[in-house]
Amino acid sequence: LLVLILAESALETVPKEIATHPAVKKHARRRGKKPLQIILDRSYHHRAMLNLPDSEKRGRPDIVHFSLLSALGTPLAKEKLLEIYVHTIAGYVIYVNPEVRLPRNYLRFIGLMEQLFIHGKVPPESPNPLIRAEKKTLKELMDEINPEYTLIFTREGKIQSLENAISKLTDKTKAAVIVGGFPHGNFSEETLKLADEAVCIDPETLEAWTVTARIIYEYERLIWLPERRLKIGGLNDRS
Amino acid sequence: LLVLILAESALETVPKEIATHPAVKKHARRRGKKPLQIILDRSYHHRAMLNLPDSEKRGRPDIVHFSLLSALGTPLAKEKLLEIYVHTIAGYVIYVNPEVRLPRNYLRFIGLMEQLFIHGKVPPESPNPLIRAEKKTLKELMDEINPEYTLIFTREGKIQSLENAISKLTDKTKAAVIVGGFPHGNFSEETLKLADEAVCIDPETLEAWTVTARIIYEYERLIWLPERRLKIGGLNDRS
Repeated sequence: LLVLILAESALETVPKEIATHPAVKKHARRRGKKPLQIILDRSYHHRAMLNLPDSEKRGRPDIVHFSLLSALGTPLAKEKLLEIYVHTIAGYVIYVNPEVRLPRNYLRFIGLMEQLFIHGKVPPESPNPLIRAEKKTLKELMDEINPEYTLIFTREGKIQSLENAISKLTDKTKAAVIVGGFPHGNFSEETLKLADEAVCIDPETLEAWTVTARIIYEYERLIWLPERRLKIGGLNDRS
Repeated sequence: LLVLILAESALETVPKEIATHPAVKKHARRRGKKPLQIILDRSYHHRAMLNLPDSEKRGRPDIVHFSLLSALGTPLAKEKLLEIYVHTIAGYVIYVNPEVRLPRNYLRFIGLMEQLFIHGKVPPESPNPLIRAEKKTLKELMDEINPEYTLIFTREGKIQSLENAISKLTDKTKAAVIVGGFPHGNFSEETLKLADEAVCIDPETLEAWTVTARIIYEYERLIWLPERRLKIGGLNDRS
């Protein structure tokens, strides 16, 4: 089983400090919502965000959207061999059922996330929600998941090929990968401490959705999932 | 060199047949544009699209958006070893400079595409546009590119692992892959005829952006690009 955790993700509702900023109020009014109920988005709130702490790491919900779309719908998810969690910069953990069909349309995704932060789950009345959110630290989440081995992907990590890194996970019953769900900057020290190994797979920063897609494909490849799903023998030696 | 072609893509302006439909007119008015100048989008024009020919293959610009975001910004693109073209269902070819920084925000991407279909290029006044569009068939594009070998990815193709398929491309000076830029249905017969080989890499249909991301990563892997960029020796035997 592979556990994917998007950590310190730039997905949150508008924080109190900027709820009265004109750009935020205007955008909220246009959407017919209260400022504190809309998702912080640099595309619309850039000026309001200038004085926000950790500003460069925040307000990019599209990163979570694309990364989830890159993970859901993969053969690994279809085989129920993938678990997905989103940890947010504001200290929430979002539990994503790997069978959820996430909206492809960005505005519908944003609407769904707004509903999630109001009700704590989506659909709001369901006893088995497809997505739910809880106030929780990444440390608490990791204790709950309790993976045998955890890799975190960062430019500061040990240089190695992705194949080499993922090969350390495939013999584990439950292994985890942590990918940053933010646009710039580094993981906090607390986050880095939660992984067994920090990995660098390219000299330049790659997009979160690119890293996510590659991790899942490499894991599938190393457990021979394509061959098993296609019912063909392996033709190449990967020993 | 790898050439990526998103073919028969569900990206087009609203077609004449439905330009006067109330749902389309309302959406165009809200955006302050003429109906024929807005991008067809199933999220907003679903009811108007019901009687459109090939309706199930159309109105999904998000597929092109995500697929391009999955291709741009990869190490292969950064090394200038990737060329990208989008062929659309309405018979246009979009030339994408692999160094373009595409908007992550969906509405900005849509705005950019609307500008592209009006002016034929973006930025409109540039002698070296980052994106340009021409009325052109996929056959004409393939004659222009003239790749040594072309794979097309479809459930109807020959069952094989992606690794096996891509290994046929890496010794070519210029090889091409065709991925469907539409949500449902099959490639037309004319499109299928343009490839040397049709490939099936999973028993279920995968999203275009997932196939795109995997092709690029597998190609990088097989030409040892990660090791070369990281300046490390290969540790695994892939002979």
